[in-house]
Amino acid sequence: MSPSTSPLVLSAEAQDLLFRSARTFSTFVDEPVPDSTVQAIYELVKYAPTSFNQSPLRVVLVRTRASRRRLVAHMMENNKAKTSAAPLTAILAADFEFHEELPRLVPHMPEAKEVLFGSRTDREASASFNAALQVGYFIIGIRAAGLAAGPMTGYDADGIDKEFFPDGDRTVLAVVNLGIASGDPAFPRLPRLEYADVVSTI
Amino acid sequence: MSPSTSPLVLSAEAQDLLFRSARTFSTFVDEPVPDSTVQAIYELVKYAPTSFNQSPLRVVLVRTRASRRRLVAHMMENNKAKTSAAPLTAILAADFEFHEELPRLVPHMPEAKEVLFGSRTDREASASFNAALQVGYFIIGIRAAGLAAGPMTGYDADGIDKEFFPDGDRTVLAVVNLGIASGDPAFPRLPRLEYADVVSTI
Repeated sequence: MSPSTSPLVLSAEAQDLLFRSARTFSTFVDEPVPDSTVQAIYELVKYAPTSFNQSPLRVVLVRTRASRRRLVAHMMENNKAKTSAAPLTAILAADFEFHEELPRLVPHMPEAKEVLFGSRTDREASASFNAALQVGYFIIGIRAAGLAAGPMTGYDADGIDKEFFPDGDRTVLAVVNLGIASGDPAFPRLPRLEYADVVSTI
Repeated sequence: MSPSTSPLVLSAEAQDLLFRSARTFSTFVDEPVPDSTVQAIYELVKYAPTSFNQSPLRVVLVRTRASRRRLVAHMMENNKAKTSAAPLTAILAADFEFHEELPRLVPHMPEAKEVLFGSRTDREASASFNAALQVGYFIIGIRAAGLAAGPMTGYDADGIDKEFFPDGDRTVLAVVNLGIASGDPAFPRLPRLEYADVVSTI
């Protein structure tokens, strides 16, 4: 599809940066990712929508050697080396107590905190879904910063939760290595499903 | 932050289109959203990553009047009128039987289908998380097409599942109205959490 006939208005360059050329990497240039970069990513992707603006994603940047060791201990074997070596690793988690922040997030609905999200079970379901949306936005944001993301779900989730969220109020959804891409992508580009296999019309 | 000092490499125009200026809308111009636009969105966002490339998102485009009525019956009261009037409404669902497609999605791991995802319980958890990531990507893709999205989670999920996925193999994650934005956004821009409230460093 040539650019002139595409229904997309996003520039081809941006399409490539965020989706088409972007790839999952496990190896990175040995150069730190400063907090200012992570903040710029956050300040961009924070605007993407969540239900009732609940914004349940929480991010732990694992910077010190000691913290990295604590995390690596819970990663699956095939994720240990790359997590040890990445310039920066982020634990992306859902906050099950997100409702405490709702009075400032939805000031026009002061009843939301208690009426909609008074139940921990309901909060867990809602936070898990909405924080997962935000994990998607965050991965796009990492790419918007010209960095490569290496998202992983191969770990002992209970172990990470106990180690990093001992209060029981959060759960890990993904662990993401990030940095400037180096070498080859983690995998060759894998096939995707055809449009007709994914989208139906009724 | 001026463009020249921003750590982001994505153009300011694209940042605005996808995140900063983009808003949730409930009212749209009375102009259809053709399948070709939805396909262009899919062909872009299909490249964004999921665990093991499992790609569990499935999309049902609700086009006919009869189908729209079947859906609106299960929407919460405050979502009925806007869902009835939107140019196009999409049901975004997670496929719990996504493992059937794995042989073509991860051809280098022929054992993945049975060894990793032989358990329905494990598939439900994995599909719910990964399809939620893809809902996030899809919302960004709608905006990349210059359209506005109106994502909703206010509905009777069991009712939608029984009505549209009677085989029990899928579950609705979000219902999204889409079209060319008209009038004002659904809400004034709501506050977001501060960086320091969301991101910590250890």
